[in-house]
Amino acid sequence: MGNGSYERLERRFARIADLNAAARTVRWYSLTYGPPGGEASRGHQLATLGGLAHELLVAPEAAEALANAEAEEPWQAANLREMRRQHGAAIAVPAALVEAKARAVSRAQAVWHAARAQGDFASFLPALREVVERAREEAQIKGEAQGLAPYDALLDSYDPGRRNEDVTAMFGELEAVLPGVIDRVRGGPKPPGPEGPRDSLERIARRMMAMLGLEERHVRLDESAHPFSTGERDDVRITTRYSGPPGEALMGVLHESGHALYTRGLPEDWRRQPVGRNRGMTAHESQSLSIEMQACRSEAFAVHYARLLEEEFGPDGAWEPARLYKVLTHVEPEPIRVEADEVSYPLHIAVRHRCETALISGALDPADLPGAFDDAVESLLGFRPPGPREGCMQDIHWAGGSFGYFPTYTLGALMAAQLAEAMREANPDLDRDIAEGDFGPLTGWLREHVHSRGCFDASSDRLVEQATGRPLDTGAFLRHIGNRYAR
Amino acid sequence: MGNGSYERLERRFARIADLNAAARTVRWYSLTYGPPGGEASRGHQLATLGGLAHELLVAPEAAEALANAEAEEPWQAANLREMRRQHGAAIAVPAALVEAKARAVSRAQAVWHAARAQGDFASFLPALREVVERAREEAQIKGEAQGLAPYDALLDSYDPGRRNEDVTAMFGELEAVLPGVIDRVRGGPKPPGPEGPRDSLERIARRMMAMLGLEERHVRLDESAHPFSTGERDDVRITTRYSGPPGEALMGVLHESGHALYTRGLPEDWRRQPVGRNRGMTAHESQSLSIEMQACRSEAFAVHYARLLEEEFGPDGAWEPARLYKVLTHVEPEPIRVEADEVSYPLHIAVRHRCETALISGALDPADLPGAFDDAVESLLGFRPPGPREGCMQDIHWAGGSFGYFPTYTLGALMAAQLAEAMREANPDLDRDIAEGDFGPLTGWLREHVHSRGCFDASSDRLVEQATGRPLDTGAFLRHIGNRYAR
Repeated sequence: MGNGSYERLERRFARIADLNAAARTVRWYSLTYGPPGGEASRGHQLATLGGLAHELLVAPEAAEALANAEAEEPWQAANLREMRRQHGAAIAVPAALVEAKARAVSRAQAVWHAARAQGDFASFLPALREVVERAREEAQIKGEAQGLAPYDALLDSYDPGRRNEDVTAMFGELEAVLPGVIDRVRGGPKPPGPEGPRDSLERIARRMMAMLGLEERHVRLDESAHPFSTGERDDVRITTRYSGPPGEALMGVLHESGHALYTRGLPEDWRRQPVGRNRGMTAHESQSLSIEMQACRSEAFAVHYARLLEEEFGPDGAWEPARLYKVLTHVEPEPIRVEADEVSYPLHIAVRHRCETALISGALDPADLPGAFDDAVESLLGFRPPGPREGCMQDIHWAGGSFGYFPTYTLGALMAAQLAEAMREANPDLDRDIAEGDFGPLTGWLREHVHSRGCFDASSDRLVEQATGRPLDTGAFLRHIGNRYAR
Repeated sequence: MGNGSYERLERRFARIADLNAAARTVRWYSLTYGPPGGEASRGHQLATLGGLAHELLVAPEAAEALANAEAEEPWQAANLREMRRQHGAAIAVPAALVEAKARAVSRAQAVWHAARAQGDFASFLPALREVVERAREEAQIKGEAQGLAPYDALLDSYDPGRRNEDVTAMFGELEAVLPGVIDRVRGGPKPPGPEGPRDSLERIARRMMAMLGLEERHVRLDESAHPFSTGERDDVRITTRYSGPPGEALMGVLHESGHALYTRGLPEDWRRQPVGRNRGMTAHESQSLSIEMQACRSEAFAVHYARLLEEEFGPDGAWEPARLYKVLTHVEPEPIRVEADEVSYPLHIAVRHRCETALISGALDPADLPGAFDDAVESLLGFRPPGPREGCMQDIHWAGGSFGYFPTYTLGALMAAQLAEAMREANPDLDRDIAEGDFGPLTGWLREHVHSRGCFDASSDRLVEQATGRPLDTGAFLRHIGNRYAR
């Protein structure tokens, strides 16, 4: 029956999970309802919650129990593997570096907010340099401890098991194809999507969530400056914004609903345990894109979407499904990543991947980032950003110290396409169901093959493999792009 | 320069403060926006946050630092005194009893919710008995550790320094006078207060909050089943409900705004430290009642209130100030405490005080509570509750294990009256200002004499004494009742 070490670890990691869950609640509150003047209190709360979770993770008692624990069945073994992974990553980095990076990030994010609006890279540079230096140290130390190259160690923290060699190869395949697709199908300025009063959009959003099987008893929809999703299996929160370009609010809801379905479908028996969480950011993004990109920017969904619009706005506000589909799949490169279409998006990510690998290796000095960024945009997307605001300063990720995160957006898109192929093979009637607004077969498949597995599989590649028969590659995504855009 | 112990304690108690603040955020979320299906996650979060705060408080390192710490100035000394008080109370009760009581409370609250609706005391009794037994143990153990009688030990946890002997004496003075006042001024069924669409009421509520100097940058207003207030100095949250009897929503906002002003006015230099928190529940209730009862159920405020109503609803929705004042000060005993008028309310509290002191001493068996409760209501308020739902089962406090809390409602009313007398002496024009909606002088006085002192004074009696020249007594309250109701 074991020596009790495993049981002690479950109790310890349940407390860590509770601290992380409370931090998610505080962060959600900050981004939705929290009064702006209360940031100081909330910052202290988050620092203390994070600090205590870290202390529980690196405590000598944890190390001892991890050394002695024995698993009695495969899920326990997977749970133990995830505990050891988290513990190993946490003890690798000295507390002094964790704090130095947190301070650098805090400063850089504040400077970024002010300097971005002015496109003032010179003001941002010293703070960015400090963050890059701390991230390089972190990458070095983590890499040494885990036997990984520095950038791989960073990638690994967002998508365990992912290696830059494979990312670079896959991105190369995308770069070889997508610019040509764009040249053939680009359509000029983006046409506006369906618009309407905020209350109407929110009603449609809630109908879409119900259509996807997200229950009000467990899932909230709120408003924030940028859409996001967070929460626990029984308490999921997504947001959207109604002030963006017409049509964006509802696509944001569909995207975040994909994340929410993942969280809702995680294995109930393993809640509050590491193995009960999602399989990293690539897997998470694959779920939002399974709903938004694969299922909903489709000819099939345009039929049901048009029905939802007509039911809300009446015949005068009606959209032809064909016109709607055209808007949903419009392609035209533009400077801002978060507004990019499905074909341009991976090239935006490739730009960032080139820059951040060079920043971490030291090949690129932060002072030279604007030029390197704009060169990459020009070579991959065919235009030069008008300035740093629409160039290397547009995203908060680097100011936030998140190097190695960007690739997971596109890896998630590849994974969504690969899952969709397998799903369509198993359910040839999927498009007919989607056109009728019946997402049961689709979400049922995702729940069985992805959501309910939590972290049982050791990596997102193993997860994809058990669902589709092979590790992640670019084949399905490029076939999907060909089918949707280059017919 | 001390031995560093004091500085270590400040860091430790700042973390405890952060954990408690995060718990307040999670609890607020549960009561406002949290989806009902997420209670399990939130329950785990709260248990872990509370457990870790307790561990930080009772750790041997804390005991050692408390034994060695030296304060260098009076505020540090007061902070140290509050640290020692919290530590002493926490180590007095064994962890096993804390957990047993938490389990009993959790069960009793669940049973209470279901049984109250049916007025089914028999179903509630076993769970209540369990809670009473745990509370009696707690009172015994805490009392022995602190050299206090059992019920005093419970009182002390809500209003440090308060003793039952004084409470009983003051309540006796109220019981001798208030029933006679009620007989003279009772007015039959309560007339409805100003009503209107929810959005209009919320607009007026926000104007009232602005009138009181509560800034949107730091203070939120939301909706919940029962009004409450919570939060930190820079991040205050109050709620009201719009579904209650006409007029109740706005009086709820005024009441909770009084609490919010206290939190907003706490000493900024001592945030995240024990001495930077409020001086217990009597002091807190004195602040809500300073605004709601002393300032706003007055002839002066009726003038400004009528103006706010007319500005929102136009001349057709206008109220004569005299008619408004009549509604605000209507007296008629009724079974439900939270709906009671200012004159009956202390008698509701006296009923509960009689019952809970007898439950804790063992003189009253929980099985006999309904009869004892109804007898007390009959003797003090002159009617017999129709059943347990409107009798001893109406409040959640006892199911929640909160014995010793009820008296602070009425002690707060006494304190508010005593502060108001001192305030009027210092500012003879107070009523003129209030009639014009100018609360600056009033809130300025409260901030100086109450809010900004935090826990600097060792007890609410010392706080009252420095503000008014004498400890708490019933004189000012009885004069106030005489002036307002028995002219």
